[in-house]
This record gives sequence, structure tokens and C-alpha cells, in this order.
Amino acid sequence: MRQMGGAFEDLEKGRCERTLRMYDLIEKKRNGGELSEEEIRWMIGQYVENVIPDYQMSAMLMAIYFRGMTDRETSVMTDAVAHSGDMVDLSPIQGVKVDKHSTGGVGDKTTLVIAPIVAACGVKVAKMSGRGLGHTGGTVDKMESIPGMRTDLDREEFFDVVNRTGLCVIGQSGNMTPADKKLYALRDVTATVDSIPLIAVSVMGKKLAAGNDAILLDVTTGSGAFMKKKEDAIELAKKMTAIGEAAGKRTAALITDMDTPLGFAIGNSLEVKESIEVLRGGGPGDLKTVCLALASNMLYLAGQGSLEECDKKARQAIESGEALERLAAMVEAQGGDKRYVYDTSLFEKAPFCRQIEAQADGYISHMDAESIGIASSMLGAGRETVDSVIDPAAGIILKKKTGDAVKKGEVIAELYASKQELFEPAKKRYQEAIVIADKALAEQPLVLARVEKGKVEVF
Amino acid sequence: MRQMGGAFEDLEKGRCERTLRMYDLIEKKRNGGELSEEEIRWMIGQYVENVIPDYQMSAMLMAIYFRGMTDRETSVMTDAVAHSGDMVDLSPIQGVKVDKHSTGGVGDKTTLVIAPIVAACGVKVAKMSGRGLGHTGGTVDKMESIPGMRTDLDREEFFDVVNRTGLCVIGQSGNMTPADKKLYALRDVTATVDSIPLIAVSVMGKKLAAGNDAILLDVTTGSGAFMKKKEDAIELAKKMTAIGEAAGKRTAALITDMDTPLGFAIGNSLEVKESIEVLRGGGPGDLKTVCLALASNMLYLAGQGSLEECDKKARQAIESGEALERLAAMVEAQGGDKRYVYDTSLFEKAPFCRQIEAQADGYISHMDAESIGIASSMLGAGRETVDSVIDPAAGIILKKKTGDAVKKGEVIAELYASKQELFEPAKKRYQEAIVIADKALAEQPLVLARVEKGKVEVF
Repeated sequence: MRQMGGAFEDLEKGRCERTLRMYDLIEKKRNGGELSEEEIRWMIGQYVENVIPDYQMSAMLMAIYFRGMTDRETSVMTDAVAHSGDMVDLSPIQGVKVDKHSTGGVGDKTTLVIAPIVAACGVKVAKMSGRGLGHTGGTVDKMESIPGMRTDLDREEFFDVVNRTGLCVIGQSGNMTPADKKLYALRDVTATVDSIPLIAVSVMGKKLAAGNDAILLDVTTGSGAFMKKKEDAIELAKKMTAIGEAAGKRTAALITDMDTPLGFAIGNSLEVKESIEVLRGGGPGDLKTVCLALASNMLYLAGQGSLEECDKKARQAIESGEALERLAAMVEAQGGDKRYVYDTSLFEKAPFCRQIEAQADGYISHMDAESIGIASSMLGAGRETVDSVIDPAAGIILKKKTGDAVKKGEVIAELYASKQELFEPAKKRYQEAIVIADKALAEQPLVLARVEKGKVEVF
Repeated sequence: MRQMGGAFEDLEKGRCERTLRMYDLIEKKRNGGELSEEEIRWMIGQYVENVIPDYQMSAMLMAIYFRGMTDRETSVMTDAVAHSGDMVDLSPIQGVKVDKHSTGGVGDKTTLVIAPIVAACGVKVAKMSGRGLGHTGGTVDKMESIPGMRTDLDREEFFDVVNRTGLCVIGQSGNMTPADKKLYALRDVTATVDSIPLIAVSVMGKKLAAGNDAILLDVTTGSGAFMKKKEDAIELAKKMTAIGEAAGKRTAALITDMDTPLGFAIGNSLEVKESIEVLRGGGPGDLKTVCLALASNMLYLAGQGSLEECDKKARQAIESGEALERLAAMVEAQGGDKRYVYDTSLFEKAPFCRQIEAQADGYISHMDAESIGIASSMLGAGRETVDSVIDPAAGIILKKKTGDAVKKGEVIAELYASKQELFEPAKKRYQEAIVIADKALAEQPLVLARVEKGKVEVF
């Protein structure tokens, strides 16, 4: 018999024994509580072991969608996800290793430009990249448009190439972050993908497992990005940098515009050629601007001086030709034909081309980057399923971009494909993605904000 | 190429074809949208057919937990749940058929009192009742403590007993509301049980399938009830009555107190004896008060006059002995020994009794009704699993209830069981459920509110 206000019940319900039950964790999160480290590690472990069923995890994910997670929760969950599989040990590589991750976009070929720049400045880039699914090929797919390129190096070869050339980009292999794979597949069918803390855990789990010393995050925003709104992109950047810092990694994020595809080229070899142009000192201005911002931030995180100094080093790496040399060295070390780096006319061209003309006078006021990506995929540049074969030469060259004036009948884009019948649906899709208005809109900056150590700088 | 603000996309994404996808429904609800009738019926149908997997439904249930459902949504979903299995057709029973549903509680024996009263007033009670799980036996379990009672009558016998005696209470049989069974099992493991719209759908789905003309809802609130707070009970009552009315049934709800067990008896035959005492004109005051309120509201919904007139009729049914006669007639018609109705000393008694004494002077300021129910279950009166066998004579007789003054050492309760070793744990549980304070608290009304046609009357 207890006197008024006793609190025996909590004790009695077995809290002393710490018998964890998924039901209790779901209820706690649902009610706005904070999960403890023990609870999160137990949950991720039991889920990977298939002890916790999907129907409980999906309820938890939806509760997280509504209640969010504290920085402490996301840090612990990220660590648990990272440790759910193989952790890469990059210590055989000498020097500072810096990683970059982009939350994705259409025509995003920045890795091919900035990895050589960073390597040329003496910082190691040992990058494991996923293959693209959906409307864009991944970096690995793009690289494979250079004949002979191998992206399936084993760990020893990988370390060796980085030590010799300063950089190496390979496909993800081994059993990395199985918890993320399982969680992502579940989120994908339960409408819980667009939860900022869950995205942060997924991205950073993979980054922590990849073993780099510093991490630069390129958080894209706009019609071609996952984060449609700048505010959400900043929120995601804050979450991810907090996780990186809690894990003892130097971490920063740039919020970059992906409302319009970056550069003019979309498609695998088309993008490689455009990247090489930037490394040669040419190429599209927007692509160069974003790549220099990313490269100088990577150098900064690797301790190469102030942002201004790093920007100068990055520009010099292009001007001196050293960055291009690094790309050629990496291509050669990975079995590729390095002549393609020096002469991009060697790349095989698509047999067919179709032009798209403006159907009205005016200014391009909007390009739906995601739809343009889908149009490119319809031409053969993307992958519908994991088993699809990519056509390296297929894609789109943009002739006019957002802000440009156009005349009715003027060519605004060129489509490339190996089969003529692919043009009609892709052309229709492309045309629907373009909005022509009677006024030009104000130009947007390409780098919208920078986040480091909880501080947000908006440009 | 579209001009500013086109809306082709929706068309293109196949909305014309109305290909429903569970993903889209989850996302819509998650974003606060209202599901259409077509979407809800499709979802329930596909879930019962095992086409929609549990992991998608649990995400939907959690989204509903956070976003709620409109009255239109709950009405459609209830109808879909009701029609997911057999619909009972009560038309072979002459006259108005009125149902009562209690959201449950400890020592809730009201059905055994009010069904005979209502029947004595000329309104038919054709009730299908679930078996109790957890800490209380259900009405069917209680009735089976009368030797010979059969609660598994087939439909024809059931209709015949109602037509002959005015009432019949049987166990649920057949394939009724399989959607509710599946949904409830899932909610039970995903922390989505305590969602008011989902509770309303579950209760009303079963009620609509049971085929009565009018429905009185007894929404219990307090420590022994599922709805701990009066506001939540009122909210649930509003949702349920709205569903009933939308389905064309006369529906009302009383919010009744279940902070303290109703009456003095907890346990199957103990509760039957106490119910019979009320029908004889005696019995505990609180039980009688609540039963008269429920019975008169059932009569009112069945069109037997104003609430005052119905209250008078209900009292007369007790005073005239007609209600007791009806109980005896029903017991006989269902194969039971009706002598037990007239002589409750015939009920088999538990071989062992243990008294519980007050451990302090003061006033009982709180009884945790749920814990007392668990103590009773520990003595053998409840069912731990679906297969547990209930001991009809086991249970508790309360000697002191909330508000009563007690002296240290005074007997506050008597425990009954068929094995002595069951006493210690049950006694401990009981003692912990009782709070003795130095002051008596203000008395609560037993019927807290009444809800009909969206109007809430608080007493």
C-alpha cells in the first residue's frame, strides 16, 4: 500500500532490468521523448538482425518523421548505422583524406572536377561512390565512359592508387552500412524518405563508414534536388555537420543551387567531357564556380589555409594544368585510356541527334531539373532498375538555360541517343520541363549558404 | 513546352487512371490530407486481402495517430471495416433492437443488469459480446458461471431466444470484421492503439456489423478505463456518435466514471450475483445509478419516450420484478439453471478467502482500478492468453472504496481463489493500488457527460 504520489510503477514495469522492447521505443518517440543511446544501438542492431520486424520499424520511422530527432539521437543512430557493417580503415593512405558528398542533382559532375583539383593541392581523395539509380548516372557510371576504366578495385589497389596519384574513385563494395540499406528500402515504400534527421543519418552513416578525416557536404536545393526548399537544405546541413563534428570529423556544408542543371551537359560521357573542359580552364561558368567553391572548402577542411588561400590554390591547380594531370594519372592507374583526358574528341558519339526548338519568344524562367534528368534517362543515360545498362554517349546538351532570352524556333537543346525512337517521348518531357515567360527573372547565387560548427552563413 | 503555371504533371502521373498506390495514401495522410472514400475502401480491402503489407499499414496508422481523421474519413473507414466480413441481419427479430457498448472497465457488469431491464420494457436486446482478454472476464465469461449456460448459439437459436424472451447474449462467432482483427493486432504492437479515430472505427465497425437499430455507447473514463482523461472520452464519444449517425443509426454516448471499480464485486460469478442483487432492487448504489442511466438511454434511443419517462420505466422494470424474470427466462432459454437467478447462494464459492487490511488510518483517496483488475486476474478471474481457463468463483470483494474512511487493521477487501499461493502476489498488487490520504476527496459524479448528435452535455 503506497502513500500519495508513489512512483513504484515505473520500477515494477521492469525498467530496472532494462529489458528493451521495440513497442516501448515507438511509444516513447511517438510521445516526443528522446531515445537513449542504449535504446538506439539496440534498435539498429536488432533491426539488422531481422529481430525487429519491418512493421514496427516503419511505425518508428513515421513517428520520427513527426517528432524529429535531437542531435544526440542522430549522432548515436548514425554511429550505429556506420558500425552495422564494414568500417573502412584508410590509415594505409598517407596524409589527410577528405571526402565530399553531394545530396544529388541533375548533371552533377562536380566530383570529376574537384577530386583532381584537391589532389593537385596535396590532399588525398579516396572516394567510394554509389551507382546512380533513377534519372542520373552516378560518378562511377560517368567514369566508366572512358574505355578501360575499372571502378571495382579491391582495397589494396584502391589505397595504392591514392598513394601514387593522390586520388581514386571506386564503386562501393563489401558489406557497408547494411542498416542503411534496410532502412532506406523501408522508408522508400512508407513515405518516410523526406525526414531531415533520417536523411542526415543515412548520408552520414555512409560517410563515417568510409573512414575519411574531413567531410564536405554539398547540399543541393531546388527543382532538381531532393531538398526543394533552401530552409530545408540548411536544416539538413546543420544536422549533418553536427553529426560529423560529434564523430570527431572536420565537417562543413555548402548549400548549392540545383534549380537548373549544372553546366550544359547531361549524360555520362557528355558530362566527363565537360568536366575535363573545366580542368583545362574552360567549361561552363556555373560549373566552374561551384567546383571551385567545393574544392576550396575541401582544402580548407584539410587544413590547407583560409578559405581565400584555398580558393587561390584551387584556381592555380587548374591554371598550372596539375589538376588535369592528376585526372589523367588516376584514369591510367585505374586501367583507363588517358588519351581521352587530353583529347575528348575520342569519346564515342551517339549516332543520332535531335534538336529542340523554342516554341515561343521570351525568357526561360524555369527549367524543371528533375524532369530534364528523366528526359535524359529516357534517352538511355540513366538506369531504371539496378540491372539496366547505361548508354554512355546518350544525353542532352542544353543550349539555353534559365534566364536566357529565346526566339521562337531557336535551338534550346540537343538530344543524343542510339535509337531514333527514343527522341519523341524525351523531347515531350523536355519541352514540358521548360517554362518561357515574358520577363527574365532575377539571377540566383549558385552557392546559397555555408554551414560549419552550427553557424549558418547565407550568401 | 508549357507556359507559366501549367498543371500537366498531375495528369501525367496517372491520376486519370486512378491507379491507387498505398505509398501515395500514406504520403497524403502524412501531409494532413483527407483520404477519399475510394482510397479508404481500397486500402481496407487490399489490407484484408494481404496485398498491402503490414509495414505500410503501420506507417499509415502512425500517420493517422498524428494527423487524425475527419468525420467523413472515420465514417467511410468504419463502413469498410464493418463490411470486411459477415454483416448480421437482425430482421428476423421483431421490433426495435438496441445495442450497448462499453469501452471497458474493471467490474463492469452493466450488461447483465440493463439487458433484462430494457427487454422488460419491450425493447429487444440481441447482443453479441466478445470474450474478455487481459484483466477482466467478458460478459460471456460472466454468464458462463451459471451452470449450463450456452453462449455459442447459432443465428437461428439466437433470433428465437430474442423473439421469445426479449433478450439474448452470445459470444461473437463467424467471420465478423476481419479488417478490425488485423488492424487491432497491428496497432497493438506498433503503439497506435490509443488513437481516438482508430478506436472509434474499431468499436463502431463491430457495432455496425452487429445490425442493431440503435446504439448506446458507454465511454468509460478514469484509472480503470482506456480513456484516462474525461476530455479524451468526450472526444471519442463525439467521433463514435458521428459515425453511428452517419450510418443511419440512432446513437448516443454516456461518459461514465471508471476511476473506481463499479460495485463491490470483481470476478465472474461474484459479479453475476451482484447484478442479480440490483435486479432484485438492492445492490450497490453506484452500480444501480449507472445501470439506470444506461438502460433509460437505451430505451430513449429505441423511441420509448423522453429520458425522464424512460428512467421511470427502467425503475418500474426493477420494482415489478419483470427485469429479474427476463434474466431468468434468458438463462433458461440459453440452457442455464435459472434457479441460480432466484437463489444466488447456489453459486459455487471459492475454497479460499484472504482478507486485506488497511495499513494506515485515513481516507481512501485513490484506487487504481486497472491494478485491481490485474490483482483479480492473478487470482484466476481473468485470462492471460486466449487459451487461459477462467476460474468463475475467483475474484475480489471490495469492502472499502474511494472516499471511505478506514482505520489501520480494518478489512478493506476480501480475495477469493482456488489456490492459496495465488494470494500473496495479488494482495501485494492490490495494496499498491490503494492510496490512503489524510483527507477525503470531493465525490465525482458517476455519469460525467452525455453526447448525442454532436451536442455534449456535461453533468
